[in-house]
Amino acid sequence: MSNSLIHPITAQSFATIDREIGAHAFNSSEYAIVQRVIHSTADFEFKHLVKFSQGAIAAGIKAIQQGKAIVTDVGMVKQGIVGMAAQTFKNPVISALDFAEPISTPEASAKNQLTRSEIGMRHCMTEFPDAIFVVGNAPTALLALCASSSKPNFAPNLPNSRDITSFEAKNFQPSLIVGAPVGFVAVLESKAALEKSGFPQIRVEGRKGGSSVAAAIANALLLLAWTEVQ
Amino acid sequence: MSNSLIHPITAQSFATIDREIGAHAFNSSEYAIVQRVIHSTADFEFKHLVKFSQGAIAAGIKAIQQGKAIVTDVGMVKQGIVGMAAQTFKNPVISALDFAEPISTPEASAKNQLTRSEIGMRHCMTEFPDAIFVVGNAPTALLALCASSSKPNFAPNLPNSRDITSFEAKNFQPSLIVGAPVGFVAVLESKAALEKSGFPQIRVEGRKGGSSVAAAIANALLLLAWTEVQ
Repeated sequence: MSNSLIHPITAQSFATIDREIGAHAFNSSEYAIVQRVIHSTADFEFKHLVKFSQGAIAAGIKAIQQGKAIVTDVGMVKQGIVGMAAQTFKNPVISALDFAEPISTPEASAKNQLTRSEIGMRHCMTEFPDAIFVVGNAPTALLALCASSSKPNFAPNLPNSRDITSFEAKNFQPSLIVGAPVGFVAVLESKAALEKSGFPQIRVEGRKGGSSVAAAIANALLLLAWTEVQ
Repeated sequence: MSNSLIHPITAQSFATIDREIGAHAFNSSEYAIVQRVIHSTADFEFKHLVKFSQGAIAAGIKAIQQGKAIVTDVGMVKQGIVGMAAQTFKNPVISALDFAEPISTPEASAKNQLTRSEIGMRHCMTEFPDAIFVVGNAPTALLALCASSSKPNFAPNLPNSRDITSFEAKNFQPSLIVGAPVGFVAVLESKAALEKSGFPQIRVEGRKGGSSVAAAIANALLLLAWTEVQ
């Protein structure tokens, strides 16, 4: 992809990925996303982990072009997106964690059986019901998003195992969910819940993911949306 | 590690890593850092990639406890550190990119043969000569740090191959350099230059690295420094 928003060093990196990735069945939009994830991690395993629901990329591009909000789970994912957003459609980029109660501590949220990410995400689901949601860290944030799909989810290996189906955000109809939490607790369950939810989605399977991966997916979408209108 | 700054879900993840990591020769401080990197990536390959120079962790801990600045290459690494810094020693956390000329564009910096990260990093080397430097993205920022060690470096596969030994920051004596740039262009060369520099260092070898990895290393150091004084 030739684009003035791509630095020459990035273009050179993309060419290396092209040479090394080997055979794959991605269409060009899907490949642009996978390529950017590999660029941000130097980990070719993502070739096998990134999954797209039917029409997900088109839905994401349309939402971006319409100026819809991009809601991230944490500030680091937001920080990874704001630069590209500012240079393209100027979508508002919001971190759900900014809407967690400011006095919340890990101890307090453990006591409430809610993570801070989950509290913040519930707020954003009500405030920005048709946003693009981008989760790169907190599986509980992704579970909160999927709980509202009215298909019960249960994360048995969370501390204080608990059902998180109880929250329903009115009019919640996400344009796209990018599900890329990382780690060892409730991550696989949150990704399974996303798959089952039926929401338009780009999902990173397995334990891998993270802020860099989630931001890379969102940035690739922003560039695809921008390239379309140039 | 039991610590009130570690969320129960994080503690549970760390226990999973303990069970799965297998035999290793890390001491307990080194392991705390490697464990946090694996926690942030779900990638056990980092067990083989994270390298410590003699005394590097002690130097980092001391600098943190003395309140020295933490300089990152990009905003995403900074964003990944500010929370832990605010909860511990309140070290200033600075992104070098904030000191790149604001009007700089990729085209302009390519023309100048300097990346924006490199321009910003040169400024920070002068402004914060004894800081902890944490590089998670830009190999050119890491090469700028190492160029001042008066051992010539050359990155032959950078666009417009160029020598970047010309800049010498006065009094530059970094407390620690965390070298974790990611990618396919000049990354291996920048890590080789760091190794050769002789600066106290925590280095992620190979192509892997990234904002999440660099922030994880810095956060683990902040926690180690904090735990020592509790």
